[in-house]
Amino acid sequence: MPDDRLSSLPDTPVPKPGQLLARGVCRHLDSHDFVTVEELIPTAGLRVDVMALGPKGEVWIIECKSSRADFQSDQKWQGYLEWCDRYFWAVDDAFPTDLLPEGTGLMIADAYDAEILRMGPESKLAPARRKVMVQKFARHAARRWHAARDPGFTSSWGL
Amino acid sequence: MPDDRLSSLPDTPVPKPGQLLARGVCRHLDSHDFVTVEELIPTAGLRVDVMALGPKGEVWIIECKSSRADFQSDQKWQGYLEWCDRYFWAVDDAFPTDLLPEGTGLMIADAYDAEILRMGPESKLAPARRKVMVQKFARHAARRWHAARDPGFTSSWGL
Repeated sequence: MPDDRLSSLPDTPVPKPGQLLARGVCRHLDSHDFVTVEELIPTAGLRVDVMALGPKGEVWIIECKSSRADFQSDQKWQGYLEWCDRYFWAVDDAFPTDLLPEGTGLMIADAYDAEILRMGPESKLAPARRKVMVQKFARHAARRWHAARDPGFTSSWGL
Repeated sequence: MPDDRLSSLPDTPVPKPGQLLARGVCRHLDSHDFVTVEELIPTAGLRVDVMALGPKGEVWIIECKSSRADFQSDQKWQGYLEWCDRYFWAVDDAFPTDLLPEGTGLMIADAYDAEILRMGPESKLAPARRKVMVQKFARHAARRWHAARDPGFTSSWGL
């Protein structure tokens, strides 16, 4: 059933549960002086929920799982490891965290904030790959910011 | 006198002439596959009108001058040269371009587009400084994009 308060806003898509977790994750990471983007594509066929860039160029990837089914349908997560220094899951406080693989980080999130319960182990990117990832991050963020500040021009981009 | 068409939109600041040139510059640079931000601070005391990041990590700075007085009051432009691979002025088609110093690039712009009349000479950044600038660009773009996509959280940032 549509939410009556939202049905009068047809141009505002209702966020999915995973997107609400991503919002809380991005808010929390700001308090660590990390900047964030959502839905970045590190390489063809992979799209990360949140990529975070730290003050010293640290690259973290956070996958947001709203349910057991959402987690169990993800066949790609191990492919993300080679694109970051640290990898985390973000789940809500009802998620059965025993399901999550060892050797990964864990955040408990809601739509408003998050908390890092377990740091992802560090596996540092090689300098050349870090350079590629920071460049991809910069271009992703700048294109979306351009679309936001000049929508009349960029509406054809489909971002 | 306020413009009647705009006075009903108190939250939408009217862009200054230089900002309209910057908009056209950013639109044009997109056609060269450069992404852009405005008002980036490379170092304390300097704020560039447009910083552009190319597909191979090229860093360009473009200063937008809406009038002779606007240009003549700029005492800082030489300080920008060390923060980019190429430096450009962007002016409208009525600007007396003879005023502009030799050895700089030139774009003719309006609010909708721009054209590169003269490439700025290349003076390549050292790798360490390029790394710093791409990181600054990424953080600047991501913070503004975060502010745009989650204004309820980031309104205190004052961006």
